[in-house]
Amino acid sequence: MAQVIQLDDLDRAILKLLKEDARLTIAEISSRLNKPESTVHFRIKKLQEKGVIEKYTIILGDPLKPKHLALVVLEVERPIIEDFLERYVEYITKTLSMLPNVLLVAKSGDDKIVALVGDESKEKLTEFIEDNIKTIPTLRNAIVLPLSEFKKGNDIAGFLAEV
Amino acid sequence: MAQVIQLDDLDRAILKLLKEDARLTIAEISSRLNKPESTVHFRIKKLQEKGVIEKYTIILGDPLKPKHLALVVLEVERPIIEDFLERYVEYITKTLSMLPNVLLVAKSGDDKIVALVGDESKEKLTEFIEDNIKTIPTLRNAIVLPLSEFKKGNDIAGFLAEV
Repeated sequence: MAQVIQLDDLDRAILKLLKEDARLTIAEISSRLNKPESTVHFRIKKLQEKGVIEKYTIILGDPLKPKHLALVVLEVERPIIEDFLERYVEYITKTLSMLPNVLLVAKSGDDKIVALVGDESKEKLTEFIEDNIKTIPTLRNAIVLPLSEFKKGNDIAGFLAEV
Repeated sequence: MAQVIQLDDLDRAILKLLKEDARLTIAEISSRLNKPESTVHFRIKKLQEKGVIEKYTIILGDPLKPKHLALVVLEVERPIIEDFLERYVEYITKTLSMLPNVLLVAKSGDDKIVALVGDESKEKLTEFIEDNIKTIPTLRNAIVLPLSEFKKGNDIAGFLAEV
């Protein structure tokens, strides 16, 4: 899996163009990079085969993406019977990932869970967190970090938003 | 911008297919959904025009995406002259967003910054955070939350990874 893959400037230039617009045709890429179409075609084929390009997808725009995002760091109650901790964490991550406004869920360490949640207004987002997240049993603590002004990675809301 | 857009089942079905594979042709979508090509073509055109589809892009695979991710919550020192706080925050977000392994940077409240960082191994990730993030001046505190086992939003590393 973690094979070392050598990418040259042309590979990177192609990847950059496709990141910006994955609908570009071979002909367009070839003309922008001033390389023969056959070369571009071959490179893209290789990039796909090697798994450098994993998937082609769309980013959803304003009408569908949540306008307000918050990161929630959840700390799970440590049960008296230590073995239960894993089950608690499993239960909470599962519950969270099924909720509609939850865009991302990941475990952190053995007793923490990080979730990215979004909604159309600050009020709705707060309400969602209060009603649906903070009420989850076996939760010890939930720190809410409302996100504003992205400097990098701004597109994640449109990428993670569900249809 | 925040106009209410009515999407019907067909729109949503098209969007779901394109999220899974943005290279599907009109013909393929039309045959999968059992709708005329002209209808599918028209719907996609409308979805683009209305900004429901914002962009077509690629997700990078294993060879280019960081294997280990951590969320870093930075708390900025509150200066004696309160007005400087904004400048500190601005300085740190800018510094962070220029660093190669930083995938996402967002402000939270008036004195916090959240960053998602990634690297190929846990050791390199820790080293990067220690050497490049924790050393930033005017920082009061940095909480590192290593992320493991994504339950949702797993693709963000490949989406945010830079070429």
